[in-house]
Amino acid sequence: MRSIIFAISSCFFLVLGRGAFAQDTDLTKYVDPFIGTEEMGHTFPGACAPFGMVQLSPDTDSVQFIHEGKYNKEVYRYCAGYQYQDKSIVGFSHTHLSGTGHSDLGDFLIMPTVGKVNYNPGTIENTSKGYRSLFRKETEKAEPGYYTVELDDYKVKAELTATQRVGFHQYTFPATDNAHIILDLTHGIYNYDGKVLWSTIRVENDTLVTGYRITRGWARSNYQYFAMTFSKPIKNYGCRNNEKVVYNGFWRKFDETDNFPEMAGKALTANFDFSTKENEKIKVKFALSAVSTEGALKNLKAEVPHFDFDKVRKATKAEWQKQLNRVQVAASEEKKVTFYTSLYHSFINPVEYMDVDGKYRGLDHNIHQADGFTNYTVFSLWDTYRAQHPLLSLIQPKRSADMINSMLAHYDQSVHKILPIWSHFGNENWCMIGYHAVPVIADALVNGLEGVDKERALEACLSSANYKKYDGIGDYLSYGYVPHETSRVGASITLEYSYDDYTIAQLAKALGKDAIAKEYIQRSENWRNLFDDKTGYVRAKSKAGEWVSPFDPLDTHAAGFIEGNSWNYSLYVPQNVSGLVSKMGGEKRFSNHLDSLFTMHIPDKYFEHNEDITREGIMGGYVHGNEPSHHVAYMYNWAGKPWKTQERINQIMKTKYLNKPDGLCGNDDCGQMSAWYIFSSLGFYPVCPGSGQYAIGAPSVDQAILNLENGKQFIIKTKNYSSKNIYIKSVKLNGKKWDKNYVNHTDIVNGGELLFEMSSRPNKKRGISKDSYPYSTTK
Amino acid sequence: MRSIIFAISSCFFLVLGRGAFAQDTDLTKYVDPFIGTEEMGHTFPGACAPFGMVQLSPDTDSVQFIHEGKYNKEVYRYCAGYQYQDKSIVGFSHTHLSGTGHSDLGDFLIMPTVGKVNYNPGTIENTSKGYRSLFRKETEKAEPGYYTVELDDYKVKAELTATQRVGFHQYTFPATDNAHIILDLTHGIYNYDGKVLWSTIRVENDTLVTGYRITRGWARSNYQYFAMTFSKPIKNYGCRNNEKVVYNGFWRKFDETDNFPEMAGKALTANFDFSTKENEKIKVKFALSAVSTEGALKNLKAEVPHFDFDKVRKATKAEWQKQLNRVQVAASEEKKVTFYTSLYHSFINPVEYMDVDGKYRGLDHNIHQADGFTNYTVFSLWDTYRAQHPLLSLIQPKRSADMINSMLAHYDQSVHKILPIWSHFGNENWCMIGYHAVPVIADALVNGLEGVDKERALEACLSSANYKKYDGIGDYLSYGYVPHETSRVGASITLEYSYDDYTIAQLAKALGKDAIAKEYIQRSENWRNLFDDKTGYVRAKSKAGEWVSPFDPLDTHAAGFIEGNSWNYSLYVPQNVSGLVSKMGGEKRFSNHLDSLFTMHIPDKYFEHNEDITREGIMGGYVHGNEPSHHVAYMYNWAGKPWKTQERINQIMKTKYLNKPDGLCGNDDCGQMSAWYIFSSLGFYPVCPGSGQYAIGAPSVDQAILNLENGKQFIIKTKNYSSKNIYIKSVKLNGKKWDKNYVNHTDIVNGGELLFEMSSRPNKKRGISKDSYPYSTTK
Repeated sequence: MRSIIFAISSCFFLVLGRGAFAQDTDLTKYVDPFIGTEEMGHTFPGACAPFGMVQLSPDTDSVQFIHEGKYNKEVYRYCAGYQYQDKSIVGFSHTHLSGTGHSDLGDFLIMPTVGKVNYNPGTIENTSKGYRSLFRKETEKAEPGYYTVELDDYKVKAELTATQRVGFHQYTFPATDNAHIILDLTHGIYNYDGKVLWSTIRVENDTLVTGYRITRGWARSNYQYFAMTFSKPIKNYGCRNNEKVVYNGFWRKFDETDNFPEMAGKALTANFDFSTKENEKIKVKFALSAVSTEGALKNLKAEVPHFDFDKVRKATKAEWQKQLNRVQVAASEEKKVTFYTSLYHSFINPVEYMDVDGKYRGLDHNIHQADGFTNYTVFSLWDTYRAQHPLLSLIQPKRSADMINSMLAHYDQSVHKILPIWSHFGNENWCMIGYHAVPVIADALVNGLEGVDKERALEACLSSANYKKYDGIGDYLSYGYVPHETSRVGASITLEYSYDDYTIAQLAKALGKDAIAKEYIQRSENWRNLFDDKTGYVRAKSKAGEWVSPFDPLDTHAAGFIEGNSWNYSLYVPQNVSGLVSKMGGEKRFSNHLDSLFTMHIPDKYFEHNEDITREGIMGGYVHGNEPSHHVAYMYNWAGKPWKTQERINQIMKTKYLNKPDGLCGNDDCGQMSAWYIFSSLGFYPVCPGSGQYAIGAPSVDQAILNLENGKQFIIKTKNYSSKNIYIKSVKLNGKKWDKNYVNHTDIVNGGELLFEMSSRPNKKRGISKDSYPYSTTK
Repeated sequence: MRSIIFAISSCFFLVLGRGAFAQDTDLTKYVDPFIGTEEMGHTFPGACAPFGMVQLSPDTDSVQFIHEGKYNKEVYRYCAGYQYQDKSIVGFSHTHLSGTGHSDLGDFLIMPTVGKVNYNPGTIENTSKGYRSLFRKETEKAEPGYYTVELDDYKVKAELTATQRVGFHQYTFPATDNAHIILDLTHGIYNYDGKVLWSTIRVENDTLVTGYRITRGWARSNYQYFAMTFSKPIKNYGCRNNEKVVYNGFWRKFDETDNFPEMAGKALTANFDFSTKENEKIKVKFALSAVSTEGALKNLKAEVPHFDFDKVRKATKAEWQKQLNRVQVAASEEKKVTFYTSLYHSFINPVEYMDVDGKYRGLDHNIHQADGFTNYTVFSLWDTYRAQHPLLSLIQPKRSADMINSMLAHYDQSVHKILPIWSHFGNENWCMIGYHAVPVIADALVNGLEGVDKERALEACLSSANYKKYDGIGDYLSYGYVPHETSRVGASITLEYSYDDYTIAQLAKALGKDAIAKEYIQRSENWRNLFDDKTGYVRAKSKAGEWVSPFDPLDTHAAGFIEGNSWNYSLYVPQNVSGLVSKMGGEKRFSNHLDSLFTMHIPDKYFEHNEDITREGIMGGYVHGNEPSHHVAYMYNWAGKPWKTQERINQIMKTKYLNKPDGLCGNDDCGQMSAWYIFSSLGFYPVCPGSGQYAIGAPSVDQAILNLENGKQFIIKTKNYSSKNIYIKSVKLNGKKWDKNYVNHTDIVNGGELLFEMSSRPNKKRGISKDSYPYSTTK
């Protein structure tokens, strides 16, 4: 078993009683940063502040994206640079994405070594070939904002912590005259030869080093600057540029490998040398900036003007405690670990992306001043519009407004004049489909989020939804669907555009723009254009209006679809579930159809060439490890069978979220997987962000208090909840009977109490009348 | 004969009489931008404003620095991108160095074409293979701030003009539906595959395009941003990225070659398409910035807020007239062309290097705000400290102060804490030897230049002169010379450090710091440590104090020397010529020694492997085409034979400065060759900048008025000057007899009149007493 730094005190709960809640509880102890770090989760175990620009974490491999001229599949496992089962660490780098299915970053790898300087990382099998080190798992521990491990090759204890913009390393060395800090600018995640476009290292004085690197990765050109300072003067330093330099002017007047203070090139690895006494600590503060080395230095001075490692560790831990405390749950110790680790994972991405003075690199790569907002980046919107952004909008509204203002700044800077699709570090990577910044914005604004110019937001949404060049929108507008000739994944796109359009309608309605609302409600019905009544599934269609054949609803790679098969995607009409139910033959047939999804057997062939889907991630044909089905288990609410939703949600939470490194059944996807868990365990879920409602599922905590930013509390209580009592017998909202299958956003933010009375048997009479269904029509 | 745009009106001079002077004379008509554009001069013929950031000029070849894995010598001829005898033009690029012996730049090539889009430049022999075009020489004309040529392949007339930061193109097209503007970001001077580290093109709207490129050339990393605007909307556009892209994220959702508005890569060439009527003009304004595309756009809007090409052409011409008018000469028409073309060439480099808002990229690559000064770059100091900077300090003191403040900013930003050696575009290329920012600063400040913090300047000079890591300074301080083990060119270095140290002494003295002055006067005598009394030459010496053998005083590549042989370099003691004369056996022997220099025969073998020296550039063993001898002809002033200086100076001016494209006998070197001519034709020359004196030579104008910035005039008159009357009979300063062989800087800047009475026979009695010698001791 991995070690995480908390000791579950069962005594404590004996005293307080299960379900009781203590205000001063240390919630960070329930966070296990190792969950998701094995196999599919793609989370990282290292240190970061909530939404921090720095994610300082160990990398266990530096897998090359291109291996002998071919795509190296192995790199996928290392999206966060780390796999839990690895036995050696290559070093500690400062930037990591959390849970993505493609990756990048790993900027500025630092590694402490002892002995002869070695500029090569070595291999995972043979650490002696490079600066890499073996470690024993029992020495590795992590908590929010702190990570430690013992590097056995060097007998160095490594400790990491971080503020928003500064990574703080503390290395305890043995007595040696050959202690080194290696800084490898060639290291990267999803690395390849040629990724570094340019890099520099400037030794400003004997304790301060600055520099930058520009990389060409998933982020087309990513500018990362740094300022690094040591707690002790450098004795000596050196650098290797491991490239064949064709041309370097005529300036070779210095030995650039030895104590030359301004190194530049495409493949720099540097060493900084020290003599240490037994147990002497060398501390390294490493600040980032996307603007300049001057910006990094400002960040360094503003955030960590001292060398007190423990002070930073404590402050960051306190910040995590403050953030986690936004939801106080009473539940079993095991569930608290799942819950708070999920909450932790929801509070990592997006990340702040500006200097302390508000300067940041825009999408146009000019330096902008964030005026009245905090700029964020890493918008994995195809994933996160579903639950991660709605969660932040509910429990982190200030940040949510900042994120939306960041998206609007992106829109302003976009040469296309559209909102982000998948954006990071001043780049748009166009990953996946849809224009899902739109539902994020619409959901938040319809729900009354303050701090965003709503008219400007609507303008940006409209502009994004009508940019004909982007991914078939032109044809979508002409044909009412994205034809197969236009996009091989046109059916998925059409379904998602239809949903996105619904949210524009809701935003327009909220702004009193009825004509726009009407137009977009009409667009939101475009899903119907691809629904094949004969097969009962959504299918790809040609421009001529013909269904594309052959058609296999189970094939994820079938014509028309992406990251989901037609079986699952055909259920993607969150904006009009009742309409879909009718289309699928009424409530009974629909409910049976859903049942079959969760129970069917999927032949092996469907798992081939499918990185995202594993046997562990599915239930029958339901794929929890990928996003398009995240709302599906809630759909019984529209079919007179809400108890079946309760059953399935409980089952998913129990089997797909496990407290172990490989406990996530799919990529965490910047918090989306985690946000699903958080909502679901509270008893409701945003099936259709933008609707103003959350569909009720099945709570799995004893109690939860949402400490809202408006100062109010919304308390979720369960009565008789147990691992067997998973069905809702009745619900009371603020003491009054509540027979709806949904909760309104306004009821939550106004504060109050939601009481679920649970039972071991389903209440098949509750929530079966049409008027209890969530937003039953798409007015 | 080439065509330059001026018609010499002989009538005009018949009326005014030769030697008379009219205030409203158009001086720009005497500038022939083609002088120096053939063979060795390395000047460019295109359009620029005085000291302008933009040098918009035709490139006739895009020679690759590396050809089939080897250095391509041919590239040297194309240091300014142009050779006069070429018959085709590849396009018009926006940055050029003037007269350098190594080069770079050629940023942002624009070429108008008609017909099918071709992204390849084609070859100099076969223009039909690419976008390149043939032209007829008679259609090519140039004047300060304007260039025109007819591109025969496309029947397009090209016209160029420029402001400080904006290149303005005007292309007159035939009637066609296939008019194109090609923008080639792969083009460069001293180009090679891999030079472009990164580049982007953003089509902001149908008339505005922005972008940038980062290149790795002589400037180790050169950031150039642009904003380009068309007078007419683009019909269509496209782009090719001519590189094998290994990895580009997953974002290939667009056809990036066709109307895709945000192109990026390492090898971009774009086309912008128009339909044109017969004789329709497409105008392109192209602004630069080293800061950002936002900065380029600011520059564009501030400097050229309209599309009136002629207005810009006139304004820039007027600016040139204003600058050239700082020296009003009366002389033969032919000499005026030599003189004003030289003055023009002296007013091109250094160039302004900041945006209109004062932002610029510093040596640390951070963006700085120029506070209270205008930032300049392109400091070819090994060349220009000799006469170019002294000239600017005399007739452009405001700019001179700005340049010095720019050097001090460089010092502040330098991680080495030293002044520039050879700096350009936020980079130090370390080219050549010495710390010659020191004499530039000392000369100007000793001469009373205002606007520079003198204490800070002295600090920077001292720091530069004591940076032990730089080019043997450590050993220079230990041994009193740079030993041969330390540097293969240690003798040249020692001589130049000795001189530089003299100037520090002068600056310290001026600031009342006598201890420092004394120390540096001592250092300035270090030349003696390498003077071999036995051979009578300066020689390389080992650490053990042994002369390095074999020794051939005529060999430019001999041990110890660079860009000059021992014969010439042994005369490089400008700070103590009298001392050198003594060392060389007294005045008579010294004078004979000089005589032999000008008359000796140099065997062919000494010209091998010597790009800089040609038979045309030398007189006997005297090499005017390279800088180390530029003071030599003036040295008779210290040997009782000033009339021999007069003779030689006259001879050099007459034979080494010709009004034809190949009329420069060596690289103009950012104005140094030209500044030599200007001073010499006025009758004096800064043999030893920092001494406060100019050695008298032989004037070759009828009259010259220096219109000084302090509002005063210094008038140089000659009496009886003719092509035969080249000897000075007598001199009067402000009406009083002046029997010195020098003029004091203070006498010039105080205003007044210097009258040279000339004769066909030398006055062998004038200037022969020791007290007439310039600064005869180095106290």
